[in-house]
Amino acid sequence: MRSSDSSGSAGTIRTQHLYLPDPLPLDSGRELLGVRIAYETYGTLAPAKDNVILVCHALSGDAHAAGWSDDPNAPTTVDGVGAAERGKSGLGWWDGMIGPGKAFDTDRYHVVCTNIIGSCRGSTGPSSIDAATGEPYGATFPVITVGDMVRAQRAFLHELGVERLFAASGGSLGGMQALEWAVAYPDAIRAIVPVASTARLGTQGVAWNAIARTAITSDPDWQGGAYYGTGRQPAAGVKTARMVGHITYLSSQAVREKFARRFQGGGDAPRYDLTEPDFEVESYLRYQADSFAARFDANAYLYISRALTYFDLARSYGGGSLERALAGVDAATLLLSFSSDWLYPPADSEEIAAALRASRKDVEHVTIQADYGHDSFLLEERTMTERIRRFLDHVDQVGEQRT
Amino acid sequence: MRSSDSSGSAGTIRTQHLYLPDPLPLDSGRELLGVRIAYETYGTLAPAKDNVILVCHALSGDAHAAGWSDDPNAPTTVDGVGAAERGKSGLGWWDGMIGPGKAFDTDRYHVVCTNIIGSCRGSTGPSSIDAATGEPYGATFPVITVGDMVRAQRAFLHELGVERLFAASGGSLGGMQALEWAVAYPDAIRAIVPVASTARLGTQGVAWNAIARTAITSDPDWQGGAYYGTGRQPAAGVKTARMVGHITYLSSQAVREKFARRFQGGGDAPRYDLTEPDFEVESYLRYQADSFAARFDANAYLYISRALTYFDLARSYGGGSLERALAGVDAATLLLSFSSDWLYPPADSEEIAAALRASRKDVEHVTIQADYGHDSFLLEERTMTERIRRFLDHVDQVGEQRT
Repeated sequence: MRSSDSSGSAGTIRTQHLYLPDPLPLDSGRELLGVRIAYETYGTLAPAKDNVILVCHALSGDAHAAGWSDDPNAPTTVDGVGAAERGKSGLGWWDGMIGPGKAFDTDRYHVVCTNIIGSCRGSTGPSSIDAATGEPYGATFPVITVGDMVRAQRAFLHELGVERLFAASGGSLGGMQALEWAVAYPDAIRAIVPVASTARLGTQGVAWNAIARTAITSDPDWQGGAYYGTGRQPAAGVKTARMVGHITYLSSQAVREKFARRFQGGGDAPRYDLTEPDFEVESYLRYQADSFAARFDANAYLYISRALTYFDLARSYGGGSLERALAGVDAATLLLSFSSDWLYPPADSEEIAAALRASRKDVEHVTIQADYGHDSFLLEERTMTERIRRFLDHVDQVGEQRT
Repeated sequence: MRSSDSSGSAGTIRTQHLYLPDPLPLDSGRELLGVRIAYETYGTLAPAKDNVILVCHALSGDAHAAGWSDDPNAPTTVDGVGAAERGKSGLGWWDGMIGPGKAFDTDRYHVVCTNIIGSCRGSTGPSSIDAATGEPYGATFPVITVGDMVRAQRAFLHELGVERLFAASGGSLGGMQALEWAVAYPDAIRAIVPVASTARLGTQGVAWNAIARTAITSDPDWQGGAYYGTGRQPAAGVKTARMVGHITYLSSQAVREKFARRFQGGGDAPRYDLTEPDFEVESYLRYQADSFAARFDANAYLYISRALTYFDLARSYGGGSLERALAGVDAATLLLSFSSDWLYPPADSEEIAAALRASRKDVEHVTIQADYGHDSFLLEERTMTERIRRFLDHVDQVGEQRT
């Protein structure tokens, strides 16, 4: 399903960094000074600067969305089942989607991906040094929102001289950012493609995130968030958090087909062990958790998880009404969802589509039949590619008719 | 939905205890000495001792299935949403199902409920003293299985002079025990009513349990299981484990209807707090977790969770074939499942029914339309009552025709 052969590759890429010159105001009322943004770009910026597509990453992703990393020690950190293989290979987390001839075609578009603020992959986050104290922020970092992430992206693009996006896209939390763009900056964006996303996480999703955060903050090695430099990190808490996340990203069917109830080592009887993995799925979860805990900052997990539970377009922009929140959207919208995604279910995308349709907006929602659950947004690249190419062509044509 | 008024009550009940005279052989090859069984009984044992219904509890339950506890300090510990209210009131965890005129009618049947071995509510478990060392077992307690739990129940009933059950019933892990009875002791049981249960937990369920156990064993206060008497208990791990369990017991729809995305205190804006509950569902989860951790032993959770993931009738009795495993069943079987139960889904019960039908067994499977998820087995008492009464009458009549 992936097209990650060297033909069509975005090439070997180095993550770059840029400091925002101005303080970044935050939804909480606080502000961040000296914000650093890690980013990558693929393709060529048109002289008119009108061909920029911003790709937004999910909880554990980073700026390395496509191509091969020039840093062999910087594995890609993406949510989900595809992470391990790609991390090892140094391939970007959405490499199948970005490159010459791909869905986000770098022969036509200048694709930009930034690491979100609050993360730990190059942009300012809780592990960054607070200039006021000379120490890492830890839990003194301000609580941030998806609105803040997008505000930072806009300020960053301004520094590049880009005032208007052709499109924004991303899966999961990345889709939330695309939606936020369309609502917060309607004049600055022509199209959005939120994938496996929602206008607000459901109650169960809020609960999963609360459980994951509790696992981290109740780990004594978390030390109130001030664990940097102590030689102890809340790895156990991060592992449990990651396991919860990992299972919610997959469909019940996917884990059944992949592991059934097979024991490790192929035996057909239990080893009667209380604490060690005995079933294959137990061992798989432990492996995924260990690998994640080794590469992701616990505080970053907390902050990003908090931001995605707070995201709620209807509350923030519509006084509780999603239709009202979306009434000012001018971007053409393609929503993609996956039939087996129970964390960001198709109904959530359909709710957005219905609200846009009610205001006679240019919107299409496609539910792709896929078995992998939420992780499908990292796996169903071939199916998504057809839909997205057709949609972007449509947006191009509408633009030409208007001019 | 509950009929817990004082009319039809099993009355005020004291939990009793009995020691098994013989060592209990275990599936792991080990054996347990001096096994203590906590139990309660309701109704009158017929002179022929042919009216005994064994009610089996779920992960966190106990012997106090019905009536009012005579001990105000012994709150009922049951899985799920009904737990808090009943615990406070001292009512048994299935009080709506057991009593005069209820589903398990104590005017006709002698209902018995034992605390499973491995638990912490009166029967021998990891918090019990190992006579060999004079210390609590902790993690040296043998890994036990549902087969072991049922073997202990059978030895216990033998001590009461009861060699044959009229029926066994229970929800979740309790239903597994009922199924095990029918398969392991076909001559000793006339009917089973497994509710919201399965012949083997699905892969996702195995994963949830692994996550819950990991949360406990990675809590430094677990101390390899030897935390008794140290003044430190792995409460944080138990809380996280319980939160995971709690959310899997409820349907997505149930939590949405109950909590939506409401903030605590009724505000309409976030408090931008990283670690404290802000949404109502977050606060609810924390409350449930705190209350559970105060009353349930961490090691007991580990052992029982392990037992229920190992349970697999096809593997243990059928060389991988459920039909073969059930071929010797003689008990009439009523399977009840709930439409919104995604942890023990209706398809799991239907799989059992189909395997029994293939051998022309007396089996009925009813899926009850209910929104609460797995917890419905504690809540849908009225609906279950009609089905169960009709079924038990049917078993009675078949018995009379045979004699």
